Amino acid sequence: MNNFDFYNPVKIAFGKGKISEINKLIPANAKILMLYGGGSIKKNGIYKQAVNALENHDFIEFSGIEPNPRYETAMKAVELVKKEKIDFLLAVGGGSVIDATKFIAAAAKYEGDDPWDILANYAKVTDALPIGTILTLPATGSEMNGNSVLTKAATKEKLAFGSPLVLPKFSILDPEVTYSLPKRQLINGVIDAYVHVIEQYLTYPVNSPVQDRFAEGILLTLIEEGKKALQNEQADYENRANIMWAATMALNGLIGVGVKTDWATHTIGHEFTALHGLDHAITLAIVLPGLLTKLKEKRSEKLLQYASRVWGIYEGSDEEKIQKAIEKTDAFFRELGAKTLLSEHEIGKETIQEIISRFENRKMAKLGMQQDVSLADVQEILESRM
Amino acid sequence: MNNFDFYNPVKIAFGKGKISEINKLIPANAKILMLYGGGSIKKNGIYKQAVNALENHDFIEFSGIEPNPRYETAMKAVELVKKEKIDFLLAVGGGSVIDATKFIAAAAKYEGDDPWDILANYAKVTDALPIGTILTLPATGSEMNGNSVLTKAATKEKLAFGSPLVLPKFSILDPEVTYSLPKRQLINGVIDAYVHVIEQYLTYPVNSPVQDRFAEGILLTLIEEGKKALQNEQADYENRANIMWAATMALNGLIGVGVKTDWATHTIGHEFTALHGLDHAITLAIVLPGLLTKLKEKRSEKLLQYASRVWGIYEGSDEEKIQKAIEKTDAFFRELGAKTLLSEHEIGKETIQEIISRFENRKMAKLGMQQDVSLADVQEILESRM
Repeated sequence: MNNFDFYNPVKIAFGKGKISEINKLIPANAKILMLYGGGSIKKNGIYKQAVNALENHDFIEFSGIEPNPRYETAMKAVELVKKEKIDFLLAVGGGSVIDATKFIAAAAKYEGDDPWDILANYAKVTDALPIGTILTLPATGSEMNGNSVLTKAATKEKLAFGSPLVLPKFSILDPEVTYSLPKRQLINGVIDAYVHVIEQYLTYPVNSPVQDRFAEGILLTLIEEGKKALQNEQADYENRANIMWAATMALNGLIGVGVKTDWATHTIGHEFTALHGLDHAITLAIVLPGLLTKLKEKRSEKLLQYASRVWGIYEGSDEEKIQKAIEKTDAFFRELGAKTLLSEHEIGKETIQEIISRFENRKMAKLGMQQDVSLADVQEILESRM
Repeated sequence: MNNFDFYNPVKIAFGKGKISEINKLIPANAKILMLYGGGSIKKNGIYKQAVNALENHDFIEFSGIEPNPRYETAMKAVELVKKEKIDFLLAVGGGSVIDATKFIAAAAKYEGDDPWDILANYAKVTDALPIGTILTLPATGSEMNGNSVLTKAATKEKLAFGSPLVLPKFSILDPEVTYSLPKRQLINGVIDAYVHVIEQYLTYPVNSPVQDRFAEGILLTLIEEGKKALQNEQADYENRANIMWAATMALNGLIGVGVKTDWATHTIGHEFTALHGLDHAITLAIVLPGLLTKLKEKRSEKLLQYASRVWGIYEGSDEEKIQKAIEKTDAFFRELGAKTLLSEHEIGKETIQEIISRFENRKMAKLGMQQDVSLADVQEILESRM
């Protein structure tokens, strides 16, 4: 196991009716900005629950944060924060709203010339407004980590930053808020969380049995509960609760401590979202099986462990077991309804070339924390997913 | 899954050489009290590492905290803290030193008449000095939770308290510090951690697949790594690292969220330590197999899950599977060297009677969070462990 530091002070309030507790979690005298997306929270009652809970607080609103949230939109919120002297940000939404809120929290306190540097030039975040979240979509894990991804619409760049200063002070996880989600979004969340786990688990062994078994436990849960969610005609509380908790645990830092993580699948996937607006989870479902196939020799040890412990594959040669595990992974995504081939999204070779060029322009010759994915590999991976 | 709140802001610094980082983790102007036990840290070099790291800090020392730490000893430290106007407590030791330090942190700021009320009468902790820890013995999980157990020597009472205010600000987990531990202490730690997991897992199902699999993952790791530790002639870093992380994860709150926990085994076990000075872990190894046998019908669902997922038992009737899982548990403790019968400790029926009387005197007619262990059950459980 490698040396590591772990620090996750996010307060989690989990369960039915927990939204009502935000009044105790936000300082009484705080001036709050409530941030949300396109207004679905007004239809499904979450907005009302939040407003009721804040009846003794002073708050204003900022809406219209889009999926794959835009830097440009976030900067409008930063202006409002400064003008209104806001001192607490309440994000009500999924990963997009929470990610945008993290950037807003950091940008509002940024003392450099241009907050874009936080995303594009690793400018250090030295202060941030406090954040709380009411999670409406289990998927990204953003509710319990300090990471954020934004897209600059002008240049179609999708970039990330992270800081412990933007860890939410609290996050409310009420599984009932997912009842009104379109099944597609719920399923995308399952795939997103699944790939988060894979990117921290399916790399190189470092003798980390606790982290490995935690990762496998989350994967098994997502497989079981993802399939149940698909089959259930009516939303089932326990099913939604288990998906929600699994997705949070998938990316709160815990399973990644002391192990080798990757993120190459995310790096490649982001490009399809930036260029063609594909759902984030779908981009991961496209890339991952190709990437694992390309790396199946380098990463054979963990792939074999994955094959047996997650998919119960014990028969055949090592190569056959690995092949079968990758096929099962792809089949799982497809069973959930994901189109995992580029042709199914009418994306062709020219996009692959464009993506390679974009990486070249950013001087990214090798991708991922493990640096074991070259641009030639990327080309081969994506061509295998046509 | 039940509703829950989770909050664990302890910073973990894990790995070789991490003790040197305490200078960055403690405020530069803090006046520190370093607390430790009988002085083994002076022989194994941990003391020196800590002192070197604190070369620019102002600190004094308090030593002599005993295993099963005493209230009386802790109160002497409280006096010193007040006299010397200490504002940071650094615990260097195992669960005993850390538990005592938590009580000292709370008692030093306690405004009621008698700090004993924190332990005996659930007096609320409203303030506490900040704590950091350097863990020397993986076992209790105290390094990453807000719980503490102390013994009043005068009355042989072993009592607990808990508060988020005594959660350590940081804990240093360097597996190398365990190299000098007597094998008995290391093995006791494995058993202690194992039973911590069991008490949060082997109760009643609430549809919590993530928590269950995390618990099973820790149990499997403790079985594998516990046996390796026993066999290794020389300390192996990876083995010690995995035991250390498993023990911390066993009792940092995570596997207990949203599920039904128990602690009856601890409640009964504490009495043997209080009355006869038995090692804490050994008392758990004595009680647990008897308790599980007594409750095998009530808790059959989780016992069957435990049998298959942890011990790989798939053959036989449900009753046989459960019986075998309990036998395997006892055999594991014995393989590690624990004497799991009372007669092996020269403890007889009169102690059982005394324990029953003590529970009666405290008006404890049913034990454990699940309240499914009556005093008649306790008698039967303990008589089965003669």
